[in-house]
Amino acid sequence: MANNLLQGKRGIIFGAMDEDSLAWKIALKVIEEGGDLVLTNAPVIKRFGSLEKLAESVGKKIIYADATSVEELDHLITESQEILGGKLDFVLHAIGMSVNVRKKKEYTDLNYDWMQKTFDVSAISFHKLMQCLYKADAMNEWGSIVALTYIAAQRTFPDYSEMAESKSLLESFARSFGYHFAAKKVRVNTISQSPTITTAGSGIKGFDEFFNYADKMSPLGNASSEACADYTVSLFSDLTRMVTMQNLYHDGGFSNMGMNPAILGM
Amino acid sequence: MANNLLQGKRGIIFGAMDEDSLAWKIALKVIEEGGDLVLTNAPVIKRFGSLEKLAESVGKKIIYADATSVEELDHLITESQEILGGKLDFVLHAIGMSVNVRKKKEYTDLNYDWMQKTFDVSAISFHKLMQCLYKADAMNEWGSIVALTYIAAQRTFPDYSEMAESKSLLESFARSFGYHFAAKKVRVNTISQSPTITTAGSGIKGFDEFFNYADKMSPLGNASSEACADYTVSLFSDLTRMVTMQNLYHDGGFSNMGMNPAILGM
Amino acid sequence: MANNLLQGKRGIIFGAMDEDSLAWKIALKVIEEGGDLVLTNAPVIKRFGSLEKLAESVGKKIIYADATSVEELDHLITESQEILGGKLDFVLHAIGMSVNVRKKKEYTDLNYDWMQKTFDVSAISFHKLMQCLYKADAMNEWGSIVALTYIAAQRTFPDYSEMAESKSLLESFARSFGYHFAAKKVRVNTISQSPTITTAGSGIKGFDEFFNYADKMSPLGNASSEACADYTVSLFSDLTRMVTMQNLYHDGGFSNMGMNPAILGM
Amino acid sequence: MANNLLQGKRGIIFGAMDEDSLAWKIALKVIEEGGDLVLTNAPVIKRFGSLEKLAESVGKKIIYADATSVEELDHLITESQEILGGKLDFVLHAIGMSVNVRKKKEYTDLNYDWMQKTFDVSAISFHKLMQCLYKADAMNEWGSIVALTYIAAQRTFPDYSEMAESKSLLESFARSFGYHFAAKKVRVNTISQSPTITTAGSGIKGFDEFFNYADKMSPLGNASSEACADYTVSLFSDLTRMVTMQNLYHDGGFSNMGMNPAILGM
Repeated sequence: MANNLLQGKRGIIFGAMDEDSLAWKIALKVIEEGGDLVLTNAPVIKRFGSLEKLAESVGKKIIYADATSVEELDHLITESQEILGGKLDFVLHAIGMSVNVRKKKEYTDLNYDWMQKTFDVSAISFHKLMQCLYKADAMNEWGSIVALTYIAAQRTFPDYSEMAESKSLLESFARSFGYHFAAKKVRVNTISQSPTITTAGSGIKGFDEFFNYADKMSPLGNASSEACADYTVSLFSDLTRMVTMQNLYHDGGFSNMGMNPAILGM
Repeated sequence: MANNLLQGKRGIIFGAMDEDSLAWKIALKVIEEGGDLVLTNAPVIKRFGSLEKLAESVGKKIIYADATSVEELDHLITESQEILGGKLDFVLHAIGMSVNVRKKKEYTDLNYDWMQKTFDVSAISFHKLMQCLYKADAMNEWGSIVALTYIAAQRTFPDYSEMAESKSLLESFARSFGYHFAAKKVRVNTISQSPTITTAGSGIKGFDEFFNYADKMSPLGNASSEACADYTVSLFSDLTRMVTMQNLYHDGGFSNMGMNPAILGM
Repeated sequence: MANNLLQGKRGIIFGAMDEDSLAWKIALKVIEEGGDLVLTNAPVIKRFGSLEKLAESVGKKIIYADATSVEELDHLITESQEILGGKLDFVLHAIGMSVNVRKKKEYTDLNYDWMQKTFDVSAISFHKLMQCLYKADAMNEWGSIVALTYIAAQRTFPDYSEMAESKSLLESFARSFGYHFAAKKVRVNTISQSPTITTAGSGIKGFDEFFNYADKMSPLGNASSEACADYTVSLFSDLTRMVTMQNLYHDGGFSNMGMNPAILGM
Repeated sequence: MANNLLQGKRGIIFGAMDEDSLAWKIALKVIEEGGDLVLTNAPVIKRFGSLEKLAESVGKKIIYADATSVEELDHLITESQEILGGKLDFVLHAIGMSVNVRKKKEYTDLNYDWMQKTFDVSAISFHKLMQCLYKADAMNEWGSIVALTYIAAQRTFPDYSEMAESKSLLESFARSFGYHFAAKKVRVNTISQSPTITTAGSGIKGFDEFFNYADKMSPLGNASSEACADYTVSLFSDLTRMVTMQNLYHDGGFSNMGMNPAILGM
């Protein structure tokens, strides 16, 4: 059901790891809609081998880069433009990881070195990425930058822990840099996505309860990864050129529910 | 640059009057993307003749209906399905009018009969429309209902007067009915659009200052009617199936600006 | 534990009916803090006799007035100033009633005459009240106008039905009129209160589930009527002179919770 | 005009430096309302001598502590309880500083080591403070923790640069920790204050334009430091026990204005 919405557009997709990754679903849909892309992830992902296979299956290149390193981001941006044959039209940031959550530290007993690492990987990487793109003047006019986020940036989900702050930070970077990128006619937005069953998401304590609760609370149910890919395509396409600095809920209505009778008796 | 995004989809477009109408720009784009539609507006519009010419130019039917009348809405919905050959996939509500503003009454000296008329036309018509669609089971699964609104629903623009309340009401109806329509897999959203130079908009006191201020405040400038048509198409398309009960700013970033240095010295 | 916070201040309290009324708890606390006041409610309340007894117990006057009638509001404002000996420093609007909810009409099958009555009583009465106060120049500088509202104005609680729209309307009036009243150094705010067990609240379908759900979701539990009275006093006092056009959640944290583990298994 | 609102309450005030500091105005008002307190600031402040004089003038102790050091915060909390004779009822966090702003780095050319320092001082210090208070069980039931913030956390003010992100982070910590502190019946809120002319504020580029713009945009004008002190007292008092996890605008209405005719022609 492709519509060639991204015909002639080029970009970089961060964060695909395996078949279940949101970023991978998005990459597939982008290609289906005629876009060309480079995949990227942290060098540590290489050893799993799964990303290599995915890239091969669609005939796209991977450039490994540590998103916390300005040098590696610069290299990625330069190389990507060479591979793709021009400036970029879209960039997806889908990176998130909490050291304290992984190490099962309670929110009232966080380790601050780990918190710093969490913010660096999950949020500051987004500013670094945009600053590198901006300085390299690597985005075409009417280009679109999107980062994935979660409603924990606005409301408290205790088990989400310091990722709430990571996402608040991420969304704030989107707003601030959206102002600056507008001078280049580039837009910056975040998609606040329903919980999805991915390898990344499933690491979080109580994730299944989370997922089911959100699914029942949302009048349309949780938005799937495939639906998120569709939505991301709309934000990369020329249909949304004047949408910028927004946090956009893609969540089946969760964000605007106060109480759904369906959750009683869970 | 059509992508057949609305191929096979049918719907009703409220509020087109002349070539400058937002609703007309949206109708054109919907047709360009393969959608079929019926145009509607208040019977009083008929005498201007402009809508007739527009409809003729694209070979579409007009069914006049008073959007404050449940009977006329019922008739419109029945007739439209007959003309289009099936249930509806999209509906656009683009109706707004303030009697007190027209009559130049100050916000601190409003006439309450006029206020009631304003709310009835500008907001309650949206509930009536949705209730009629709902009862008639006239929407297809994954259909999309959109109403146009303005950020005065959230923040005060003194000259906008009681239209602020009309839009608050309208957006609340969207959220509430969005919950109920989800049971039919239909989504309901509002687009909060930049000021646009239309025949309707230009009736408001101080509109030009309004327009220029918003244009300078918005990092990408005001979103045009054409851009709004593009965005509306994205919301009618299958790319946004899981977006519901949302108020979506289509405003070049206006809504998230605190202060733009560009407005100093206006 | 009185602190004379409202010493020398005069005002009108709408909406007290019996001992369980939020407005009555607020009136009591206002008196305790040294404020003087007139009580008002709809003439139809007179026959219950309960308000008469309450007024007598604190030695305050009642002036019955239909809050949908500009004439009766004008009379109330004139009389109150005479009884209290000067202009007003505070006004509480605590009026809400849905005809469709009372008559058990579903949200997808609302009666529009009843809806109009609902809005008139629950929301437009607030604009009428403020317009009458404004025209009569009845508020002292640094006066404070407060209306009670509910988070259904922002998020969907299906059983709350058209009261969601009433509250959206009410809050919008507060913002809009807050701008105009600022020229007189008067502030206007709404308190978005937890559900409370009052005679009014208990009429709503599924209220107990509502109440318990909110209580578990709120980290501090639901805010009681007494706590609401304390908070209202803070908004009438000189401690909050620069807070205006705000909707203030008084809800034990409910509004900023995404998921509270405590609600699972309800 | 004291009302003994804080009689018997004890707490710690961070961030007072000289007579113009918001934190100092708050400390004065707290004392006036019967509260007892310890002042604290970074050791580097000691050499200016101004805080010593202020403390002396009200007969209160200063404990210097680096708010980025868990050890120094622990020491501060222990010592304060000893000096004050019991657990704490209120804590004010009024700390903010951006290295990149000081060094005049553009937002599109930020230094990431400096950004980390900015976040550590301006935002993470708030989590550290709360974690130390929580672990030490240093807060009394119905205690109140307040941090000062700015609306740049929600909307873009280009010159505010990375402080926007600092404040987003700060407010997110307030929400998250507010949930956890509720188990101890302690509330956590942020006050989003108008720009005020303080030694700290005046370091920011274009501050005067900022200040005047906000003053004209706000229907009641900018809220002064004195008004902020009053408001903070209301949040420390028992009048607001059920308000938690909120970001509260104390800004003369700025946050809910879309356009104020008064700013045209600035």
